[in-house]
Amino acid sequence: TKRYSITLLPGDGIGPEVICVAKNVLKLAGSLEGIEFSFQEMPMGGAALDLTGVPLPEETLSAAQRADAVLLGAIGGYKWDKNEKHLKPETGLLQLREGLKVFANLRPATVLPQLVDSSTLKKDVAEGVDLMVVRELTGGIYFGKPRGFGTNEKGEDIGFNTEVYSTHEIDRIARVAFEIARKRRGQLCSVDKANVLEASMLWRKRVTAIATEYPDVELSHMYVDNAAMQLVRYPKQFDTIVTNNIFGDILSDEASMITGSIGMLPSASLGESGPGLFEPIHGSAPDIAGQDEANPLATILSAAMLLKYGLGEANAANRIENAVLDTLNRGFRTGDIYSTGNKLVGCKEMGEEVLKSV
Amino acid sequence: TKRYSITLLPGDGIGPEVICVAKNVLKLAGSLEGIEFSFQEMPMGGAALDLTGVPLPEETLSAAQRADAVLLGAIGGYKWDKNEKHLKPETGLLQLREGLKVFANLRPATVLPQLVDSSTLKKDVAEGVDLMVVRELTGGIYFGKPRGFGTNEKGEDIGFNTEVYSTHEIDRIARVAFEIARKRRGQLCSVDKANVLEASMLWRKRVTAIATEYPDVELSHMYVDNAAMQLVRYPKQFDTIVTNNIFGDILSDEASMITGSIGMLPSASLGESGPGLFEPIHGSAPDIAGQDEANPLATILSAAMLLKYGLGEANAANRIENAVLDTLNRGFRTGDIYSTGNKLVGCKEMGEEVLKSV
Ligand SMILES: CC(C)[C@H](C(=O)O)[C@@H](O)C(=O)O
Ligand SMILES: CC(C)[C@H](C(=O)O)[C@@H](O)C(=O)O
Repeated sequence: TKRYSITLLPGDGIGPEVICVAKNVLKLAGSLEGIEFSFQEMPMGGAALDLTGVPLPEETLSAAQRADAVLLGAIGGYKWDKNEKHLKPETGLLQLREGLKVFANLRPATVLPQLVDSSTLKKDVAEGVDLMVVRELTGGIYFGKPRGFGTNEKGEDIGFNTEVYSTHEIDRIARVAFEIARKRRGQLCSVDKANVLEASMLWRKRVTAIATEYPDVELSHMYVDNAAMQLVRYPKQFDTIVTNNIFGDILSDEASMITGSIGMLPSASLGESGPGLFEPIHGSAPDIAGQDEANPLATILSAAMLLKYGLGEANAANRIENAVLDTLNRGFRTGDIYSTGNKLVGCKEMGEEVLKSV
Repeated sequence: TKRYSITLLPGDGIGPEVICVAKNVLKLAGSLEGIEFSFQEMPMGGAALDLTGVPLPEETLSAAQRADAVLLGAIGGYKWDKNEKHLKPETGLLQLREGLKVFANLRPATVLPQLVDSSTLKKDVAEGVDLMVVRELTGGIYFGKPRGFGTNEKGEDIGFNTEVYSTHEIDRIARVAFEIARKRRGQLCSVDKANVLEASMLWRKRVTAIATEYPDVELSHMYVDNAAMQLVRYPKQFDTIVTNNIFGDILSDEASMITGSIGMLPSASLGESGPGLFEPIHGSAPDIAGQDEANPLATILSAAMLLKYGLGEANAANRIENAVLDTLNRGFRTGDIYSTGNKLVGCKEMGEEVLKSV
């Protein structure tokens, strides 16, 4: 038996519900492949704020750093929205990404044939969309210094941030993206704003340089404003997209909405070595928390990414992915992806149906 | 007779064709309302680079500054894509915005009933969309200093930019947006990334403060990643959006694509005083340049915005807007908005049909 230790960070809102379900699926898929997990649940986000006064307690970060992989539910909620910056749940998430050094954020956006009608895009535009956004996650304007508040030469208050990228940061995220594109359809689109920003000019130069290591991958470049349009116009043109932290934040959310089922979409955040961080891309949805209405499939699919990208356990990962497809084929739907003719179920029941299919 | 002087900047690609058509429409609509124009055509963008070696010659900027309003076609093309930054057509555009101090960029995105099928969004999602993006245009990361290239403490090359906003810059764009929202449906959504960026925290604080001057306008706040999703999910929720330069660049392009007819969309850029800058939001489309295939309606509607926002000539503006609607109702379509049953026309013929309806 192989053994792995997993740190679970249920977080806030619907986080605990979806983590509970995903944990059971992970356990079963593992045991069928001779894998045993030890789980450690730690507080994070608003839950940690209420318990300890900080959004990422030291014990949580060090448990995560020692684990083989980290599975996160969701963080945030109205209650902590007006908190000062260092006491926001979001700050805890940024500290976790930084602390785990997970610089590569993988966000697949796939339109499943079963769910093509959930998209607000016309069927012929949405069907067959299968793209992956590779977002740089520990650099750029999210972390760049100097940052803060001050006054300008006219004595007016200012707020400022620094968008900064180094060759090292660009090169390593580019390599991750080229590797992924190589295993997909061999097309990488790098998104930047090199017609205006120096940080983007260096980005484009380095991505172009790294491309020589991947002659089998076709590289293209696109400005971010055009990319935001093209995702709406003809999303099927994209295979793999690589972009910086803030553009990745915006475009991956746009891409996920194009699939029409953000309750379905997982993500993986990986570093050079050390544990990866896996989480659904949806938020904590405080309005439906505790009502057994959440769609647990995004977190279940994040558990599959954990197996595949975090632990190299492709067989167990495939079990989960197939189980999700099978459950959808059997007609089970949570409210967010429901359409007439299907069976409406809650979070727990969806989890039980997936377990039957694992 | 009222007299106005207009600087025309045809620019590159399809720019000259659409400007030529729009100029004739402007002339006729003006003359029917007792307005006379003097037009001065000046080089700008790639055309200016070829002619003078710089993308915005001094004579062009000073002619624009002296005019009552400026009408721009489009700039850029493959030929100048690899130019160094200070020799890019785009740099000329940024210099023009800065030189005219046009800090408020108004980008309407409207789905006309006649063209609802051009959208890639489902009909019930697209129909009735009528929103206005108010983008801050002369600040933020586009112009912030310090910017450039350098090395970090590890000796790696870096590229960097500064996102910075002052209270003054935020207050004045917020006021423009509140004024516009007041004349529309009274709803203003301010888009930022205040959960991460200090520049956005100040943005949110100031917009909230200015809101007290506009008790009749309903203000909401949204994070930029969520806004990118919501534009796809349910664009009808938006009336007026106000946001910073880079988020506005991305979101206004996304919004325009949602209408499915970017060949139809005008924009206005306004300052505290002095001439406004009016231009279609589409690019120079070098691939169809000179083939009489371009859709001139975006530039014609930009001329209407010039009359309305630039010169306060609402009657002449309405003439043009109604003429465009009438021409569409009579079934005339350029290739980009063509659907079976309509009459396919080129750029010039479309212009002539609009003239008939003015
Ligand atoms: C919560 C927030 C800080 C975060 C981000 O901006 O990275 C979120 O939007 C995401 O994309 O994971
Ligand atoms: C051409 C470019 C510099 C410009 C911008 O980014 O502002 C364009 O995309 C626009 O939106 O007008």
